[in-house]
Amino acid sequence: MYDKIAVIGYGNVGNALVDSLLQNGITVDQILTTKKQEIKVVDALPSIQFITDYSDLKADLCLVCVSDDAVNSVINRIPPEIPVAHTSGSIQLESLDRKKNVGVFYPLQTISKERKVNFKEIPLLVEASDENLKQKLIVLAKSISEEVHEVSSEKRKEIHLAAVFINNFVNHQIFLAEQLAERFQFDKLLLKPLLLETVYKAIDEGAYNAQTGPGRRGDVNVIATHEAMLPNDLRLIYHTLTESIIKTYHG
Amino acid sequence: MYDKIAVIGYGNVGNALVDSLLQNGITVDQILTTKKQEIKVVDALPSIQFITDYSDLKADLCLVCVSDDAVNSVINRIPPEIPVAHTSGSIQLESLDRKKNVGVFYPLQTISKERKVNFKEIPLLVEASDENLKQKLIVLAKSISEEVHEVSSEKRKEIHLAAVFINNFVNHQIFLAEQLAERFQFDKLLLKPLLLETVYKAIDEGAYNAQTGPGRRGDVNVIATHEAMLPNDLRLIYHTLTESIIKTYHG
Repeated sequence: MYDKIAVIGYGNVGNALVDSLLQNGITVDQILTTKKQEIKVVDALPSIQFITDYSDLKADLCLVCVSDDAVNSVINRIPPEIPVAHTSGSIQLESLDRKKNVGVFYPLQTISKERKVNFKEIPLLVEASDENLKQKLIVLAKSISEEVHEVSSEKRKEIHLAAVFINNFVNHQIFLAEQLAERFQFDKLLLKPLLLETVYKAIDEGAYNAQTGPGRRGDVNVIATHEAMLPNDLRLIYHTLTESIIKTYHG
Repeated sequence: MYDKIAVIGYGNVGNALVDSLLQNGITVDQILTTKKQEIKVVDALPSIQFITDYSDLKADLCLVCVSDDAVNSVINRIPPEIPVAHTSGSIQLESLDRKKNVGVFYPLQTISKERKVNFKEIPLLVEASDENLKQKLIVLAKSISEEVHEVSSEKRKEIHLAAVFINNFVNHQIFLAEQLAERFQFDKLLLKPLLLETVYKAIDEGAYNAQTGPGRRGDVNVIATHEAMLPNDLRLIYHTLTESIIKTYHG
């Protein structure tokens, strides 16, 4: 489908994407990065040319895997005749300077170098300025994922916002519970079976049906006891979320 | 260890506990319940005597599996010579009228009839007014779980509070994301791989290290854009949690 693919940026997403492409028999010809810590790993992939200069790019598609605030300027440095797709959840296509031959190839997942993720199950949200590029991106996406969706910039932005609740805020609740474990001096691993069952139950039954606890029951005595046990910052969060749960179930 | 075990209350916890005891070769002699919907299932367990009258109790141990607000009054109806343990996370031993022969046998898990849980991995938090009863409860607990912990009422209350963050609040974040999926008209299943990876990553790396997103980066532009997209009630939650994340990482 593409003779030559170049990946720009070799951080968390770049790493995972290159791995996944290679594992699925797709050749990656070039990786461009100007970051020293990313260049260091060059030896691990002898079949791929590492470059640091945009004028050395020779590709039919550039996949841009850089941080959100660098996406537009990086795309501006890529020769306009080379099609480009960025991998960011929140950057609208219309916000970019480039208007043609530009698309999106967004994996809806939290990706870090330390953890292998299975791209087959990761939703890939695809969009492009041109029908031709869009079809090519869809074919490429389907070669690594079974969950390929054509999604507009507007919808992708909305999905990304929901993902903040699912990833950032769920993680922060876990962090706050870990803080309480430290404060109250018990092993946080005690909470692990509960956390896993909470998530699988919410997935199976839907979170509305799965809700339990003092907010769900409207148990003002337990709520008052809990709030009295918490330091100010956690009390505010307890209060805000419990009010929201009470409103959900008791109007 | 016990000749005769009676379980009082046959709701979610009673069901799961009876199942688990039977599966591990522990005989349950009696189940006492006065709730019609719980009596209905009597036929499923022919080897166990279902009773509705406290005067019919013949047991060396009563496991009380009723709702928090019924625990004290149920224990008061059990003949004082029969040792008793309740299964509630938040009820202090000292808050009960009974002062002797009374203990706690608390499974730290969210339990519902629809979902089988593996008691082997569920932490069982045990406490008792008397050393003799405590030792017996520990032996019983170890027969069904590999995670048996002797825990004071005070500590159990603290663990229970952390469990509210892990269960109630994580579930509520998932609910809010499901609401957004409905509002923005996309399939909530798109978020499932992200949710699972979020949780496993937090467990493996610790939630502090696993945090990402606009609050972690202190990205005020993305935060403002997100808040503008949300209805009032969700905006308040977004704001409160994001402020907490910013404070965690940027002081």
